[in-house]
Amino acid sequence: MTIAATHWILTLVCEDRPGIVHAVSGAIVEAEGNITESQQFSSDDTGRFFMRLQVESDVSRERFEQALAPVTERYEMSWQLDVVGRPLRTLVLVSKAGHCLNDILYRQRAGQLSVELPLVMSNHPDLAGLAQFYDVPFESRPVTSADEKVAFENRVREVVAEHDIELVVLARYMQILSPELCAELAGKVINIHHSFLPGFKGANPYKQAHARGVKLIGATAHFVTSDLDEGPIIEQNVVRVDHSRTPAELVTIGQDEESRTLTQAVKWFSEDRVLLDGARTIIFT
Amino acid sequence: MTIAATHWILTLVCEDRPGIVHAVSGAIVEAEGNITESQQFSSDDTGRFFMRLQVESDVSRERFEQALAPVTERYEMSWQLDVVGRPLRTLVLVSKAGHCLNDILYRQRAGQLSVELPLVMSNHPDLAGLAQFYDVPFESRPVTSADEKVAFENRVREVVAEHDIELVVLARYMQILSPELCAELAGKVINIHHSFLPGFKGANPYKQAHARGVKLIGATAHFVTSDLDEGPIIEQNVVRVDHSRTPAELVTIGQDEESRTLTQAVKWFSEDRVLLDGARTIIFT
Amino acid sequence: MTIAATHWILTLVCEDRPGIVHAVSGAIVEAEGNITESQQFSSDDTGRFFMRLQVESDVSRERFEQALAPVTERYEMSWQLDVVGRPLRTLVLVSKAGHCLNDILYRQRAGQLSVELPLVMSNHPDLAGLAQFYDVPFESRPVTSADEKVAFENRVREVVAEHDIELVVLARYMQILSPELCAELAGKVINIHHSFLPGFKGANPYKQAHARGVKLIGATAHFVTSDLDEGPIIEQNVVRVDHSRTPAELVTIGQDEESRTLTQAVKWFSEDRVLLDGARTIIFT
Amino acid sequence: MTIAATHWILTLVCEDRPGIVHAVSGAIVEAEGNITESQQFSSDDTGRFFMRLQVESDVSRERFEQALAPVTERYEMSWQLDVVGRPLRTLVLVSKAGHCLNDILYRQRAGQLSVELPLVMSNHPDLAGLAQFYDVPFESRPVTSADEKVAFENRVREVVAEHDIELVVLARYMQILSPELCAELAGKVINIHHSFLPGFKGANPYKQAHARGVKLIGATAHFVTSDLDEGPIIEQNVVRVDHSRTPAELVTIGQDEESRTLTQAVKWFSEDRVLLDGARTIIFT
Repeated sequence: MTIAATHWILTLVCEDRPGIVHAVSGAIVEAEGNITESQQFSSDDTGRFFMRLQVESDVSRERFEQALAPVTERYEMSWQLDVVGRPLRTLVLVSKAGHCLNDILYRQRAGQLSVELPLVMSNHPDLAGLAQFYDVPFESRPVTSADEKVAFENRVREVVAEHDIELVVLARYMQILSPELCAELAGKVINIHHSFLPGFKGANPYKQAHARGVKLIGATAHFVTSDLDEGPIIEQNVVRVDHSRTPAELVTIGQDEESRTLTQAVKWFSEDRVLLDGARTIIFT
Repeated sequence: MTIAATHWILTLVCEDRPGIVHAVSGAIVEAEGNITESQQFSSDDTGRFFMRLQVESDVSRERFEQALAPVTERYEMSWQLDVVGRPLRTLVLVSKAGHCLNDILYRQRAGQLSVELPLVMSNHPDLAGLAQFYDVPFESRPVTSADEKVAFENRVREVVAEHDIELVVLARYMQILSPELCAELAGKVINIHHSFLPGFKGANPYKQAHARGVKLIGATAHFVTSDLDEGPIIEQNVVRVDHSRTPAELVTIGQDEESRTLTQAVKWFSEDRVLLDGARTIIFT
Repeated sequence: MTIAATHWILTLVCEDRPGIVHAVSGAIVEAEGNITESQQFSSDDTGRFFMRLQVESDVSRERFEQALAPVTERYEMSWQLDVVGRPLRTLVLVSKAGHCLNDILYRQRAGQLSVELPLVMSNHPDLAGLAQFYDVPFESRPVTSADEKVAFENRVREVVAEHDIELVVLARYMQILSPELCAELAGKVINIHHSFLPGFKGANPYKQAHARGVKLIGATAHFVTSDLDEGPIIEQNVVRVDHSRTPAELVTIGQDEESRTLTQAVKWFSEDRVLLDGARTIIFT
Repeated sequence: MTIAATHWILTLVCEDRPGIVHAVSGAIVEAEGNITESQQFSSDDTGRFFMRLQVESDVSRERFEQALAPVTERYEMSWQLDVVGRPLRTLVLVSKAGHCLNDILYRQRAGQLSVELPLVMSNHPDLAGLAQFYDVPFESRPVTSADEKVAFENRVREVVAEHDIELVVLARYMQILSPELCAELAGKVINIHHSFLPGFKGANPYKQAHARGVKLIGATAHFVTSDLDEGPIIEQNVVRVDHSRTPAELVTIGQDEESRTLTQAVKWFSEDRVLLDGARTIIFT
């Protein structure tokens, strides 16, 4: 398929060697492109080279890809060629709490978040009205048994396949994904969770945070791996609190951090700014 | 001893019951005082009541204390009557890293931190010149064996007794205090350590933080208990970092947070703004 | 009318003199109240004393007011006795931009903002759907001539009177209120505007901010006086930007700051935490 | 002179045209270099292209410059080839306030700021001891008349020439530089000043900020032009304050922001991260 487009995003990952930038920029010259933005990073940890370019060019995708082919082959690159502003096909999973979903929907409508939302799925019906207001299809099905969980995840697989989903957002979806689904969707699932200094294990962390009198509470957006809450970190934020906050107030404050942190992570992902370097992320902001 | 003074700080802690504020303010009226600042907090966790007042009064300390006595006795209060701006007798312990000590000394001289520093003690000689520049006595003695550690801590005890030390600041003192010394100085020792989201156990946490690609690093100032790094939190700060930071750069950034966080905690303590409520602090800022 | 209530908010302003706290706390003892939160401030600028108390008491409003009367009279106090959590009767004025309104509506529904919204008024019809989703009446009427402006403001007066409105929020309402209306509603109208370092005069400030390469952009919520954008400041926030931001992106970033800053100001106002001290505000947070 | 070095910084500015990156990276391949860091920006405002590269290469400076020559000539580039970590020859001017100077000296000694300080000049003797502690020559001469001002500035010119000064830092130097000196040192002088939202004109801005009850105060580091305080902005920071702060406390808080903001600006400049694009700066952080 030929897409005539002006602004492209090109991301590249390969083993770090001399001459890569020259080779890539040569291919772009051949594609009659002008580089308008460029970021790169050489990882001392893994020896890998990461690059993100924005390129203005009026050639077709085929011609662009033909120009790139000799370079991506020689350097054995993982690469992606995208168009600036193309809405990312995104599936959102939620449970009962609406703060993250509301922020995503509002910003998508306001033109601040370039995502396409074919469906919101939930294990509870509570947020149907919110999705409906923003004209986004909503589907809920209970997950109260192992069988229902398998059915829910199979439905996720169907939706991912049917809509060619590029990103699954766990917007306070309170079920743990099965290791199998995590593996199938590796690098494509973003989760949000609260964060504290120091960290707390076990139930009701806000109550523990209150008991210890923490002065900062925050949120972490990260890729999901089968090791829950331990995937590569994409974004983190904190906010200051004091001794007078009740556990309930800490929850409210924490939710605000969760919303803005998750939306930021989704936005960067949708703009191809998030690359994986082993256990950590390279964020080209 | 009678100190004629205009601005007093009165802190009070007792079981929460009706009428405390009226009783306290009555005593202050009797001491011909005018309340210029007042903060209070009732802890739902422990059922205790905390109050900090600043009072203008020209009566003597004796008369002020006489006016307070019926109230503090009736409510079985822990209380303290201090004079605004009186330098806190402070002992600083350091090792090799000078960033925290430099900040304390600079701000003390600049009139921003009301502490009196009869001595800086260290297990290394490296920071003697820095102390000397600020005309603060400095004493170093090695701590490389159990015996030397006992000797060092005994010298701490001596200095605390001799100078009637009110606060011991561990300004990157890299030795763990013995449980006995922690117990003797309970509520009087402030430590600073780096903080990460998530937390990391074991050696070289900055390297681990780099490996996990954390986006925030910070510092926590806390009271020392025998359970190291787990005492009541006084102050926390974080700063944003990205993937391009080397472990060495993370160390530098973390040190800045340590300095400002520790100095802030010491400042609040010297102004009688830090009260203990079980495992957490009440900070009247 | 007698309202049986447990948690009260009492705010007081008067000339600063000795004995106020004792007198007030005595009245509260008489009203069988327990002070659970207390903040005060003596202004060196104006010589006035400000106090905000939260009090638990099961007596009726009449009895509480009777207990207070001798004190409020003796000290010639301005005072207010409110019930914690009572929704503030609020009129929101908007134009076309929905970011501030969306935030207010979402947080009101989420239980994070205690306001009652009998009406949203606008000089444009664009935001009718947003109000409707949240079941809030919406009314738009054009303001394109002097006559229409008079009519709009008269309708504001009607609504304020009919619903006994306590706060008018200009949530990006792009018309300047007449000096007469400002005077009538003095201390009851909160506006939000963008803020830059340095400030910029004239049209399209985001374009100017871009041209000067500012590194911080922000928002200021303030009371409206007839001297537009120059009333007492309630809250300010900023966020970091860099050279790569287009003027359009600066607008988006600025809007986020506007939303959160305005909502915070409204929240504090609804909790009786905002008091006026001449040209500046006392915020008891 | 031939300097054998491993890590280079190359900065380039020219009219934006296609093929620049390819041409530059070709020259680097010819210089046997490996690009380890690269940032670029195309200014829509001025049509200019900005690039900063870090390059590992063991060739001599001559060979590197020979490789670059055809490219820098063809594109009519302004360019600079520097070595990572080379201390910047810096002249610091101060008056009486030591907070900015202390921060620069401490960080230089701690290895966090790569500057070489042949001299600190002042119009007052107060800070001689601070400079002496850090073994930096200090020279003071009064500036109380037009003649003394001319003499002081002539001495600045001498020092700049003698030590081949690359940067002049006004670290709270409270004299206005003459338009002639500003012109001679254009792009080489960094100043720091306090910043408020809104801005205040005239004497004692902290008092004005207090009177208006501002909630944020901050600092701006900028290049000096003959139009004082209005040169291109390099860095800005703010910090939150509340109504209880006296004007004197606002000064202390503002000074902290000044120190860290100025040091950050000097650090970026010393690392060739600050480029000028008309009235604004491009900061490659």
